[in-house]
Amino acid sequence: MTAQRRTRLDPDARRSQLVEIGVRALSRDSLYDLSLDEIAAEAGISRSLLFHYFGSKRRFQLAVVEAAAAGLLTHTEPDRSRPPSVQLRQSIEDSVAYVSARRGLYLSLVRGAASGDEAMREIFDRTRGALVDRIMDGIADLGGTPGDPLLPIAVRSWLALTEEAIISWSPDGPVDRDRLITFVETAFYRAVLDPP
Amino acid sequence: MTAQRRTRLDPDARRSQLVEIGVRALSRDSLYDLSLDEIAAEAGISRSLLFHYFGSKRRFQLAVVEAAAAGLLTHTEPDRSRPPSVQLRQSIEDSVAYVSARRGLYLSLVRGAASGDEAMREIFDRTRGALVDRIMDGIADLGGTPGDPLLPIAVRSWLALTEEAIISWSPDGPVDRDRLITFVETAFYRAVLDPP
Repeated sequence: MTAQRRTRLDPDARRSQLVEIGVRALSRDSLYDLSLDEIAAEAGISRSLLFHYFGSKRRFQLAVVEAAAAGLLTHTEPDRSRPPSVQLRQSIEDSVAYVSARRGLYLSLVRGAASGDEAMREIFDRTRGALVDRIMDGIADLGGTPGDPLLPIAVRSWLALTEEAIISWSPDGPVDRDRLITFVETAFYRAVLDPP
Repeated sequence: MTAQRRTRLDPDARRSQLVEIGVRALSRDSLYDLSLDEIAAEAGISRSLLFHYFGSKRRFQLAVVEAAAAGLLTHTEPDRSRPPSVQLRQSIEDSVAYVSARRGLYLSLVRGAASGDEAMREIFDRTRGALVDRIMDGIADLGGTPGDPLLPIAVRSWLALTEEAIISWSPDGPVDRDRLITFVETAFYRAVLDPP
């Protein structure tokens, strides 16, 4: 037996470990391709023990998506001590880094979020809502017009543009990372802060 | 028996009729809430006859989504005899009209397209691809730069912005239709035709 196989963890630590392995696996696999056998093996436990901790594959998937969505929010949290325009740029850079390293998460959570799966849609809506709220909170500092009824639509639309830009982009393609980030940043200034 | 119940149709006409009823139902229901009982009743046939024509609920759903996606492309086809800027504006107006009358379609096809359902994702990708191609074909006439490697990313991102803008908007809300259309149109000029 390897050292890993002998490790004993209490249930909460074990659940966290399994979810963490699942989130890491999303860098290569979509949520629906996650192999529970591989994840259990990586944790040094049996597949049936993984089921014991989560009850079903679906509940494990939801726990993974929940953790990944929380990770996105944490990784893109702006540093409020910096100037607003720097916070915006930094958040976009962080989003590109976090999401482009987890395409599987993105395609599962952010694009394919919904279709009939209420629990998944709920996580998507909550995450999207938290991002919208964060932007709305900083909008006046960035020079936006908080009372404009178009603003929430513009913010949501810009988030969708940002998601699609990151999904469509490849680090190995002809567009360099800095230009992608500037494209998304410029779209914010033009579409959200200076709407027609 | 009503006149409708007595109508006899050949199989192709019956399939078309059922799909058409399904597409219309997407104006109120999501794809996953479509009631086969109601659709069969509206056509004046039994639920089992509907199954006979499509084989499964899923295959009926796919036929409905396929038809609705084709309808979106047809309804937003620009009139090439008009000036490019007029074509763009008209296509956006047509998209708002088509999609806002079929929110269920939108949430099923365009947002929740994928998650593990390859056939649905294939329809989504094909429809999105056709829209991208159409825009790319007209991009030089609109003043864009066809050879710029950022352009396909910008076009896809703008389509995502457009979809989200239409989904987030309500005809009964504080933003009028004309301003929504101008928001989407302006975003095209700024993000796609004048990228950083």
